[in-house]
Amino acid sequence: MTDLSTALQRSLDGRWAAIRDETRKELNPERFAPPSGWLSLEDYRARIADQVQGIAETGHAARGFPVEMGGNGDLGGSVTAFEMLGHADLSLMVKAGVHWGLFGGAVANLGTKRHHAAYLPSIIDASLPGCFAMTETGHGSDVQSLGTTATYDPATDELVVHTPDLRSRKDYIGGAARDGRMAAVFAQLVTGGESHGVHCVLVPIRDDAGAAMPGVTIGDCGPKAGLAGVDNGRLSFDHVRVPRTNLLNRYGDIDEQGRYTSPIENQTRRFFTMLGTLVRGRISVAGGAGAATRTALTLAITYAGHRRQFAPPGASDEVLLLDYRTHQRKLLPALAKSYALQFAQNELVALMHDVQVSGEEVEEHQQRELEARAAGIKAVATAHATATIQTCREACGGAGYLAVNRLPALKADTDVFTTFEGDNTVLLQLVAKGLLTDYRDSFGDLDTLGMVRFGARQFAGAVIERTAARGLVHRLIESTPGRDSEKGPLDRGWQLDLFEDRERHLLETVALRLRKAGKPDADLFAVFNDAQDHVVAAARAHVDRTILESFVTGIETCTDPAARELLERVCDLYALHTIEADKGWFLEHGRITPARSKQVTATVNDLCAALRPHAQDLVDAFGIPQAWLASELLDPIETTR
Amino acid sequence: MTDLSTALQRSLDGRWAAIRDETRKELNPERFAPPSGWLSLEDYRARIADQVQGIAETGHAARGFPVEMGGNGDLGGSVTAFEMLGHADLSLMVKAGVHWGLFGGAVANLGTKRHHAAYLPSIIDASLPGCFAMTETGHGSDVQSLGTTATYDPATDELVVHTPDLRSRKDYIGGAARDGRMAAVFAQLVTGGESHGVHCVLVPIRDDAGAAMPGVTIGDCGPKAGLAGVDNGRLSFDHVRVPRTNLLNRYGDIDEQGRYTSPIENQTRRFFTMLGTLVRGRISVAGGAGAATRTALTLAITYAGHRRQFAPPGASDEVLLLDYRTHQRKLLPALAKSYALQFAQNELVALMHDVQVSGEEVEEHQQRELEARAAGIKAVATAHATATIQTCREACGGAGYLAVNRLPALKADTDVFTTFEGDNTVLLQLVAKGLLTDYRDSFGDLDTLGMVRFGARQFAGAVIERTAARGLVHRLIESTPGRDSEKGPLDRGWQLDLFEDRERHLLETVALRLRKAGKPDADLFAVFNDAQDHVVAAARAHVDRTILESFVTGIETCTDPAARELLERVCDLYALHTIEADKGWFLEHGRITPARSKQVTATVNDLCAALRPHAQDLVDAFGIPQAWLASELLDPIETTR
Repeated sequence: MTDLSTALQRSLDGRWAAIRDETRKELNPERFAPPSGWLSLEDYRARIADQVQGIAETGHAARGFPVEMGGNGDLGGSVTAFEMLGHADLSLMVKAGVHWGLFGGAVANLGTKRHHAAYLPSIIDASLPGCFAMTETGHGSDVQSLGTTATYDPATDELVVHTPDLRSRKDYIGGAARDGRMAAVFAQLVTGGESHGVHCVLVPIRDDAGAAMPGVTIGDCGPKAGLAGVDNGRLSFDHVRVPRTNLLNRYGDIDEQGRYTSPIENQTRRFFTMLGTLVRGRISVAGGAGAATRTALTLAITYAGHRRQFAPPGASDEVLLLDYRTHQRKLLPALAKSYALQFAQNELVALMHDVQVSGEEVEEHQQRELEARAAGIKAVATAHATATIQTCREACGGAGYLAVNRLPALKADTDVFTTFEGDNTVLLQLVAKGLLTDYRDSFGDLDTLGMVRFGARQFAGAVIERTAARGLVHRLIESTPGRDSEKGPLDRGWQLDLFEDRERHLLETVALRLRKAGKPDADLFAVFNDAQDHVVAAARAHVDRTILESFVTGIETCTDPAARELLERVCDLYALHTIEADKGWFLEHGRITPARSKQVTATVNDLCAALRPHAQDLVDAFGIPQAWLASELLDPIETTR
Repeated sequence: MTDLSTALQRSLDGRWAAIRDETRKELNPERFAPPSGWLSLEDYRARIADQVQGIAETGHAARGFPVEMGGNGDLGGSVTAFEMLGHADLSLMVKAGVHWGLFGGAVANLGTKRHHAAYLPSIIDASLPGCFAMTETGHGSDVQSLGTTATYDPATDELVVHTPDLRSRKDYIGGAARDGRMAAVFAQLVTGGESHGVHCVLVPIRDDAGAAMPGVTIGDCGPKAGLAGVDNGRLSFDHVRVPRTNLLNRYGDIDEQGRYTSPIENQTRRFFTMLGTLVRGRISVAGGAGAATRTALTLAITYAGHRRQFAPPGASDEVLLLDYRTHQRKLLPALAKSYALQFAQNELVALMHDVQVSGEEVEEHQQRELEARAAGIKAVATAHATATIQTCREACGGAGYLAVNRLPALKADTDVFTTFEGDNTVLLQLVAKGLLTDYRDSFGDLDTLGMVRFGARQFAGAVIERTAARGLVHRLIESTPGRDSEKGPLDRGWQLDLFEDRERHLLETVALRLRKAGKPDADLFAVFNDAQDHVVAAARAHVDRTILESFVTGIETCTDPAARELLERVCDLYALHTIEADKGWFLEHGRITPARSKQVTATVNDLCAALRPHAQDLVDAFGIPQAWLASELLDPIETTR
């Protein structure tokens, strides 16, 4: 590590830098690194189950639970430690995330004291391996329409959990196929013939000997594209009875007289409030995607820095791959975006931590902002992972295709990140919905399609809200006098203004289109569907803008002058490459002239060339221990093979 | 199959429709389908080796060799049959391609009668499993710089094959790790201390018992991202001696007096002539990529046609995924491009067949056109496969991540197609080089970088040449009177003109930039490198244009009015989506107005909606037997699970 990369790392590591350093030291690659050979599915699952026990022994797991529940209440630290697991085996990361984050998170956030006392100790020490049984074969994105039922039987004071049809079978459930003993089952809660919407019930699925409990049918999803160490399975329930008190009853309870009560009257609002408490899963996936992407970039950029191919006429030395413009174009804008996303992720984790550990009652506005940010960053970070890891594989040629060089597993394991914890296309629509509605006043029966009529009624013009921390952004936009044409493409204010302007225009025009739904005879689905790609584009523009703002404010934390100067250039590359990628839109809408558009492309090329000598520093600053990277790609062949 | 899809299939199947039907019937899925369970590397390799023997028994293999060599001379049929293997297990396709196409192709095309007589019978019946040992650890793209040497020893009349260093080790060689008995080894041929450039020598690598031959060190590349059934390995030679006559001597020979002779004096020209005879490999990879992509699209579109999610407000039925605009946008333009590529591939295979079986001496111009077309289609078809199979996986959500649903293997197995048989970025530069030079007059020491000074000297303005078959294209461009603004985006002449115009402009401007290299003090590498992304864009524009022209002429073969009408709409979608994807360029260069640009986007949306009711017909027309598709994605869950 050079001084420069150390200084860069300090900025990237952010508020929970100490946790990052701790995991860098504690997680022994000899125990937690991905396997080097070909393992059978069973061997891989057994290996990961053992590694989860190893993680439990480190004590890290307690960090994710509040002090009053026996944890140590460092939620931001917990999510950061999880992110660092993304440098290890991603099967381990996901398996740990399912057990502590999803299963443990459901018990902690949806349960009450009786559940915390009964289960959290054995969840924290991993002696009660758990599953998060939400998704069904027939319903993944539309969780509100789950088919599993939990019906209260007053005769026995029990809940009867039942799978009415194949579409309602729980599917893709991590931990179900091999290790899970208890599942947090999401089901339509029914009392006295009345449904109260989706709630969560704890259901034992295996006995101590590992056999399926009576009435529980367990299936195995079998081999997958990746994450071979995660035992995804299927659960069906045939009138399985559990005590009434197994209902996680923070937001909806059944009293001893069998009456249903809830602090939140509106069913849809109650449902989204319950889901909202589970936001940490999405944030964690975004973090894990970021770590995996940084691993891939470190491998591909290091390789391109020593791998040579083709000698120019008259020269004796062949050219380094990273000196070719096409190669710089493949890797360096992706690197810049990984920097941007790291700052955005750090800000998101801090927001989550401050909202969730505040102790006071969380303001709904803050909670909704957190959810929208989490959905947006998750969608963009996981799409970036899929695209970038693919590019890194190709940039390493045949070597990138060998398992020993890690890129195949990074690709295969992260592939499902764009799907789980919310399909990206659905998540971006969720972001847009948040932007188009004033949810504080009208958080009623508003589903993804209902937003149409709603949007048409309520929408009064898009307002770009900047948080208090964004004073800097405001100043940058206002600081440069002169017309746009006089500001160069490296003017940060011009870049920020362009990002904001695109977002505002897309939001305002999508709102205009949705107004059509206000007509009495409107075909709501047709109106919504015609605008769907527009809605998604608006959300993406919003997320792009918040990421750029996070980068700009993140640079402020860097006190080393050389590192700061470099970060400014990386930020330029992120901003201009994002503009270039959507230059069709900016030109179509007269936001940039053809001359400026060509200038942006030329400047992206110049920035790639300017950053190329610092490329190794920039990836070293990710701070991935060499032992985690064990790969033939790292050193020139003469010295290693 | 509806009548419509049958009529569509007739057009898509093309000239070798009979071969396609034969493989549809003959290749028994029970024997050749991908494995359903988790196989160890060794079990998978053994399974594929056995399947290769099964293919040999069908007699298909003889098709790829000329009659005078014991084959039946149906080269186009051979490549088409290989493409159809892309619907089976891709490990089988690649393993078969390495043995018959690459190893067999080297013996047939680079060898002479003595090699044909000695080896082709046992190559055709697969009793002599072979390897194609070209790529080295240190050189993949730059084959001309291989380090392996084959030095003639007059004392014993032998060639001494040697690996001087680790960079010169043969790497990623299919068949090397387990099954190969003989390798076609590419090496620098040296006689009397003088090097004659890269030639190919047959080297036995294993004895009949399967043990490595003396002096041959065999390594195993181990697990890979995909293609687990292909035993890729590494070969090193320690002064391994083979008879002089093992030199494949069609383009360079050593006589009994130890003198080197060649019909082609110039070493670089000789090298490219030898490589040119092996063009079938690239064409085959493009075909296999196409088949895999069509499989993925068939699965994802069929699934989206019965899978529902979210009910609109007030409606009881949930919406089919394929009715959502964002979902149409993901799948239907990709489907249109697969149609376009199928027509382009059919034309390419026919061109290859006619050039290679003509019997007469091939005109160099024809040969170079064939090579450029093969390189361009390979690059575009494999990039399309990587992007589209990824999209299909995501479009099927969690189900798309399960191995049982085939998409994971399609993704992982095809991932390396963008790399092998030529890295796509390198191939596109090869295409551009062909467009920028008049190779007939000046095919000298012209390597990828040398083109810079060369281009500056020779280039006189880009000429878009259309072949004779392109009279239709010319008529379409000329047929519509009026200014561009008066022609709608569905005007075929307007679309074709736009594709041509972009290609011409990019070629002319790149040539202008490269002229700088003509200055005496020019830094050749810097001039070339600054223009590299421009060079690649020019090549892509060229390939896009030829693909569109292939589609337009391909439609002419369709005599069914309804199918023809549908093909015209699919062609519109391909053309307009390609324009939309590069709208930034067209706007930047004043080729379209902002209003027209928005109109193009709106028309793409309209075309997606118009094609949606025919989506199932369009994928059924790919003619993939249901048994090959065995997947839970094909039918609604109620009826299958």
